[in-house]
Amino acid sequence: MSTRTETRLSDGRTLYYFDDAPGADDGAADAPGADRGAADRRALPPTASSSQIRWDPLFRDWAVVAGHRQARTYKPPDSHCPLCPSKDGRQTEIPAADYDVAVFENRFPSLSGHPGTAAAPDGPLFRSAPGVGRCEVVCFTSDHDRSFGQLSAVRARTVIDALTDRTVELSRIDGVEYVFCFENRGEEIGVTLSHPHGQIYAYPFVPPRIRQAVEAARVHRDRTGECLQCAVAAAERAARERVVAESGCWTAYVPFAARWPYEVRIVARRHVPDLAALTGDERDDLARVYLDVLGRFDRLFDAATPTPYVAGWQQAPVRAGADLWHLAVEVFTIRRAPGKLKYLAGSESGAAVWINDVAPEAAARRLRAVGGPVRRFA
Amino acid sequence: MSTRTETRLSDGRTLYYFDDAPGADDGAADAPGADRGAADRRALPPTASSSQIRWDPLFRDWAVVAGHRQARTYKPPDSHCPLCPSKDGRQTEIPAADYDVAVFENRFPSLSGHPGTAAAPDGPLFRSAPGVGRCEVVCFTSDHDRSFGQLSAVRARTVIDALTDRTVELSRIDGVEYVFCFENRGEEIGVTLSHPHGQIYAYPFVPPRIRQAVEAARVHRDRTGECLQCAVAAAERAARERVVAESGCWTAYVPFAARWPYEVRIVARRHVPDLAALTGDERDDLARVYLDVLGRFDRLFDAATPTPYVAGWQQAPVRAGADLWHLAVEVFTIRRAPGKLKYLAGSESGAAVWINDVAPEAAARRLRAVGGPVRRFA
Repeated sequence: MSTRTETRLSDGRTLYYFDDAPGADDGAADAPGADRGAADRRALPPTASSSQIRWDPLFRDWAVVAGHRQARTYKPPDSHCPLCPSKDGRQTEIPAADYDVAVFENRFPSLSGHPGTAAAPDGPLFRSAPGVGRCEVVCFTSDHDRSFGQLSAVRARTVIDALTDRTVELSRIDGVEYVFCFENRGEEIGVTLSHPHGQIYAYPFVPPRIRQAVEAARVHRDRTGECLQCAVAAAERAARERVVAESGCWTAYVPFAARWPYEVRIVARRHVPDLAALTGDERDDLARVYLDVLGRFDRLFDAATPTPYVAGWQQAPVRAGADLWHLAVEVFTIRRAPGKLKYLAGSESGAAVWINDVAPEAAARRLRAVGGPVRRFA
Repeated sequence: MSTRTETRLSDGRTLYYFDDAPGADDGAADAPGADRGAADRRALPPTASSSQIRWDPLFRDWAVVAGHRQARTYKPPDSHCPLCPSKDGRQTEIPAADYDVAVFENRFPSLSGHPGTAAAPDGPLFRSAPGVGRCEVVCFTSDHDRSFGQLSAVRARTVIDALTDRTVELSRIDGVEYVFCFENRGEEIGVTLSHPHGQIYAYPFVPPRIRQAVEAARVHRDRTGECLQCAVAAAERAARERVVAESGCWTAYVPFAARWPYEVRIVARRHVPDLAALTGDERDDLARVYLDVLGRFDRLFDAATPTPYVAGWQQAPVRAGADLWHLAVEVFTIRRAPGKLKYLAGSESGAAVWINDVAPEAAARRLRAVGGPVRRFA
């Protein structure tokens, strides 16, 4: 079990260190926690956010308008990486000289505790509100050149512990309705900092995609009495042809109606709503299965051009629909072939209809092939 | 008013020429219709499609699975452009030696009249159906190096006539529920053929984004008796600060809750459901306003790197909700600053929450600035 230490950056933002269990094999130079109290010696101005949420009455969606983010750090050279530890006289976002996992509030947040004021109300068709919430950055390792898929199971478990901790705490913020943990990996996916990291967005509403899934789950439970995710995962296990990895506690499969060229859902076998509800064994098991799936994604294409991917941790909403939810992690890549990407254009961005050029069964076969046969953990 | 000529390609696909009115000033070398009967001298094999639609029960969406499209033509050199007219001994998709506007069935269709068989049913949670429908390509000009924004108003009107004609005909296909005309422009948006062209997708279902808008329109009409699009456009005209261009028949504005860095809706002033319902004057007027808006997009950034954009023509569904619809055209770019794109990553693709880094009012100011003051046509 990892340990957490809390400190503050010079502009008041909170920083949390999550350290692997003592004796872990990730090769941190110092004993865990050695300089976790190191001070941020930069003199940063307070972060300013002009974030708003605005309601689109035509399509019934919230959009987040965050004009201040245009100035955010954009593809700095490795020598100026703000997510590396502070050393050799260079101060970064993380004051310690080394760390295992570090989480801190984003300096250019889309949503924050100090959002902008809402736009002046122009009439009933223009609804807006301050962009209340919180955006955090999760650094998976102090090693700039590693990737999540290359972490040890111990470290992956520490990351899971960190996501769990942050989800529980961010869920308590007034006005937060959903906490979404995700990783964007690769320049092709728009990543502006190459250091291995994920993000956490605490939204003041339930995101549309989650809302749809809550509604589908509600209809299915009302009709059958059962959990829809449980039913779909059981059907995928029975069909077998789209299963990619399995363990005692988790099933990883390519969805029958996958939207992306390579897409995997990792679903808890037990009906659990979120990370906090998992046992220690289930978390250790998830760490191994998640690393296995990321490894398969990394081996899909040429090792010199890492597979770009998005990983989204789909946990229960804070309130609305929380009783219906079943925890899952979704991993997908936009790369459809070596050197070719799946773009979201007219059909996807204009009409929300995804065209997938890779049959899910073919995707599952390839994902199985690049990792040996279906691996059975534990 | 433009004229239409119909012919067949060697594999049986239909090709339509739409010619500008006689005397039009687009400089076609020959008299309109001169060689519209020119034969396709290639010996193409019949197109094969394995397209399916598959239902995702968890998120309640159809995805289109079109594995055969992986082999489609990908960024050919200009000298091999399949959308240029056939001349100098080189045969392309368009047999004529010149053309104004040409429309033909896509050789690698996502949806077609000869789709694949549905996946074997695995159980009630795996629903699929053949990918019935049709995908057409719309070439806006025979000039490989021009763009839509550089067309004359006469030619833009011919394109509008072509989209109108195709929408009416494709709506009559058995099983088609929605016809979506769109243009993807620019490599950054995933365009694999640089010749100026758009596409038409005839879907066997109402796309999710349109379905949401139908539902919003229904709720609003039930409550107020009025059309939601009419109400929003009137509110934008009254607020003024997001209006970009106006004419007697059309209003172009940046939506209050825009999702994209630069996004414009062009809305008919009269309550009309689709292109077919427009008068000739309204079409001429639309051609001018649309060209004005595209010109503004083109002038947003450095002329050497054309603004990538998606333009989507939102017409009424074939059946469900057709009585509620109000015609609009949506144009947006993914470029948020010179050299910087808006990517769809964790928040957008994972949760369907758009983060917009450009305030809509600022976007409207810039769009007005790059085209002079709000232009009043007619």
